[in-house]
Amino acid sequence: MKRRELLKNGSLALGGLFLTPFTAKANIFKEEFDGKKAKNIIFMVSDGMSIGTLQMADMYSRRKLGRPSHWLSLYEQNLVQRGLMDMASASSVVTDSAAASSSWGGGHRVTNGSLNIGVNGEEYLPILQKFKKAGKKIGLVTTVPVTHATPAGFSVYSKSRNSQEEIASVYSGLGFEVIMGGGNKYFDAAQRKDKKDMYTVFRNKGYSVARNKAEMNAAPANKPLLATFDEDALPYSTDHLSSSFMKNNIPTLAEMTSKAIGQLKDDKNGFVMQVEAGKVDWAAHGNDISGLIYDQLAFDDAVKVAVDFAKKDGNTLVVITTDHGNANPGLIYGKKVDENFDRIQKFSQTNEWILQGISSGDSTAKIKERISQANAGIMISDDQAKEIQSYYAKAQMEDGVYNPRHLPFKLLSQIQQEYTSVGWISMDHSADYSEVAMFGPGSEKMKSFMKNTDMHTFLLKVAEVENKF
Amino acid sequence: MKRRELLKNGSLALGGLFLTPFTAKANIFKEEFDGKKAKNIIFMVSDGMSIGTLQMADMYSRRKLGRPSHWLSLYEQNLVQRGLMDMASASSVVTDSAAASSSWGGGHRVTNGSLNIGVNGEEYLPILQKFKKAGKKIGLVTTVPVTHATPAGFSVYSKSRNSQEEIASVYSGLGFEVIMGGGNKYFDAAQRKDKKDMYTVFRNKGYSVARNKAEMNAAPANKPLLATFDEDALPYSTDHLSSSFMKNNIPTLAEMTSKAIGQLKDDKNGFVMQVEAGKVDWAAHGNDISGLIYDQLAFDDAVKVAVDFAKKDGNTLVVITTDHGNANPGLIYGKKVDENFDRIQKFSQTNEWILQGISSGDSTAKIKERISQANAGIMISDDQAKEIQSYYAKAQMEDGVYNPRHLPFKLLSQIQQEYTSVGWISMDHSADYSEVAMFGPGSEKMKSFMKNTDMHTFLLKVAEVENKF
Repeated sequence: MKRRELLKNGSLALGGLFLTPFTAKANIFKEEFDGKKAKNIIFMVSDGMSIGTLQMADMYSRRKLGRPSHWLSLYEQNLVQRGLMDMASASSVVTDSAAASSSWGGGHRVTNGSLNIGVNGEEYLPILQKFKKAGKKIGLVTTVPVTHATPAGFSVYSKSRNSQEEIASVYSGLGFEVIMGGGNKYFDAAQRKDKKDMYTVFRNKGYSVARNKAEMNAAPANKPLLATFDEDALPYSTDHLSSSFMKNNIPTLAEMTSKAIGQLKDDKNGFVMQVEAGKVDWAAHGNDISGLIYDQLAFDDAVKVAVDFAKKDGNTLVVITTDHGNANPGLIYGKKVDENFDRIQKFSQTNEWILQGISSGDSTAKIKERISQANAGIMISDDQAKEIQSYYAKAQMEDGVYNPRHLPFKLLSQIQQEYTSVGWISMDHSADYSEVAMFGPGSEKMKSFMKNTDMHTFLLKVAEVENKF
Repeated sequence: MKRRELLKNGSLALGGLFLTPFTAKANIFKEEFDGKKAKNIIFMVSDGMSIGTLQMADMYSRRKLGRPSHWLSLYEQNLVQRGLMDMASASSVVTDSAAASSSWGGGHRVTNGSLNIGVNGEEYLPILQKFKKAGKKIGLVTTVPVTHATPAGFSVYSKSRNSQEEIASVYSGLGFEVIMGGGNKYFDAAQRKDKKDMYTVFRNKGYSVARNKAEMNAAPANKPLLATFDEDALPYSTDHLSSSFMKNNIPTLAEMTSKAIGQLKDDKNGFVMQVEAGKVDWAAHGNDISGLIYDQLAFDDAVKVAVDFAKKDGNTLVVITTDHGNANPGLIYGKKVDENFDRIQKFSQTNEWILQGISSGDSTAKIKERISQANAGIMISDDQAKEIQSYYAKAQMEDGVYNPRHLPFKLLSQIQQEYTSVGWISMDHSADYSEVAMFGPGSEKMKSFMKNTDMHTFLLKVAEVENKF
């Protein structure tokens, strides 16, 4: 009996659990998008997101908010194409963010730490400069400094990702319409080595400059916009939500994304924008579970803003991905795992907040109280508090990519494991292939497995911008 | 300009890197499979496979063999549908294998440790019994005892997955055409509590019984087949490959899969078979990297056997998945990560082989030598060897699901990390959503995100077997 007949006579009647027939999916891709040009592209990166990060944020959302994450909701609704992406760099199977963003941005694998500079010094023109030349408006939005590796890999060449002051200078000549995130110290005359006031440079080129949420909201659509909301990275979402000062002055990633779309959307040639949740990576480096989950959820809210726009617009490709795994967190089997996982819902501050707020003279009682306050009343032992204390007396030190004060992030995470059931393989990047999902025109051309450098060509092709630069 | 015109006039000429146009993909699904019944189903489970396990096996294959894994090759070729599956059980966000297999097998979430028995004692008829009643031939193939949780969850009810002797007895009444794997001790009269010779019971019901590879190969296609190749689980692939005795006597998972297909394929009503790589999970519990990668590759070879058959047959749905994450292994960023990862290619034995072969009287020199022999010449320190030695003197002990002798698996893995760059979050299951891929008729109906219990209904629907039992 044919499926059509079965459907007709009801013996294949579909219950709530049964899956969408192919024809429904085909309609979305084929009739709406197939053959259509991606006039606009929103490229979204949750930096350093292992698959466990994506799924814990989704589980958190289902258990606390009663709905899936927006990202996985796109999977449930069969609205996107999914793939895995091999992110190896020229120097290693495990990439850093500079080489990762360069692989997409310049179309070549480069050595970890460098930005679109080949192993023999070749300069690979970054994709946002190509799209700019093709007449599109360009945007960069991030929760870390706007000069950081992931936005920079789409925008500039540099032998070192660490040259952030120089990158700020280069940005002033690119003519990008939106540059928004953290990193005041790379623009501020008082903090730059060359004492140049980059804000004046940008203003002289016609930019509005915003330093807080109100100024961002007030920025006119007809002028390019540079916005820096903090000295370096923006605060973690967990800490941001717990501070009315921060909430009033610093926008969320979703709010920045929405503003950026507003600045970019009305141009006949379209726009290309990168949106990065940079501190998902930082939280993973710190094995900081509340930092990790809430920043992933903040990214997820930005995904909703982008996809909602793309659904209305019909000409926008949204790419949702990560540049590499980091720390491969996961919930570990055990009697208390459900209870422990739900406890994280009540964590009000990050481990960064806990550890940055402890001083070398603090008593163990004060340390225990600070952790209890941040972590839903958990009470660590005196011995554990003493061990934490010893790091502040410089008896011990921890190293880490984002740990200049050598604070005991690893130790705190190990202590918390009893209360959270969350494990980590390390405090650094992993070689895991990246999850990638696409919504909109061009998505139908995506393969389920690709190399990172394929993405460069792919974006130019689906936008019908020839790779002739 | 329309895409068709672009293609015609060549301005969208596709380079080697460019992705398959949608129409090619649509052809595979729509024209070949859409609306077609899944007459046969091969359901393949790499037990306890975190996404890092899948990708490390793929990277290993690309770097050593110069080709992708068969699983990810299906992604590269866009031949399958991909999804994520929420595997939570009735008792926890982190499932065990019994509850996981029951969720697919019985269509209900049950408490960890139980097989198709509901929280109020309900008995949920397992899917292979349903398919048997519908006239299909049935097969079970695994590298662990055939009575173990994953095959049992498709086949029987039981309050406890540990009742393996009882499960062997129940199997004798089910009429399945193929039961193949490990677990002699649950069938052998001398080892069973009831002293019943299950082989005689099976022979009396018309079964061929095979106890080694030659007997398996000789088993006729017109009789049902029970085969047990070892006392408990089969050896790890790493150790299997290093022993000519084992290679001669015990088939690989791919060889068993091929034989099973041969036994099942010629029936007008079709067949349903489960194939499990059970020791991927055991290796993850032991943080045993060479056990893990080689058993995943052995699973991958079985995937090729199944998909090759399905391609020829045209009426076979192949489901490729895992029941839960385990230990979330990953390669960690660092200067030596590439060199370290490639070193694993030369590991000739598992950590189980290393640790089971050490005795309490062994010198540190002997321990160092054994590790060096198994692990491509690495030389651990005297202090590390002493620490391992102390476990055999019962000064220390490690617990673990598959570690009855309390051997130092965790310690050895921590020592090896310097030489392998592989990290693990724990020695137990994780809550990560399962990767699932489908090839063949019915695959076009799969959603990119599903609940484990949806799978039960899905399989019955695509096979057009009504869920009336």
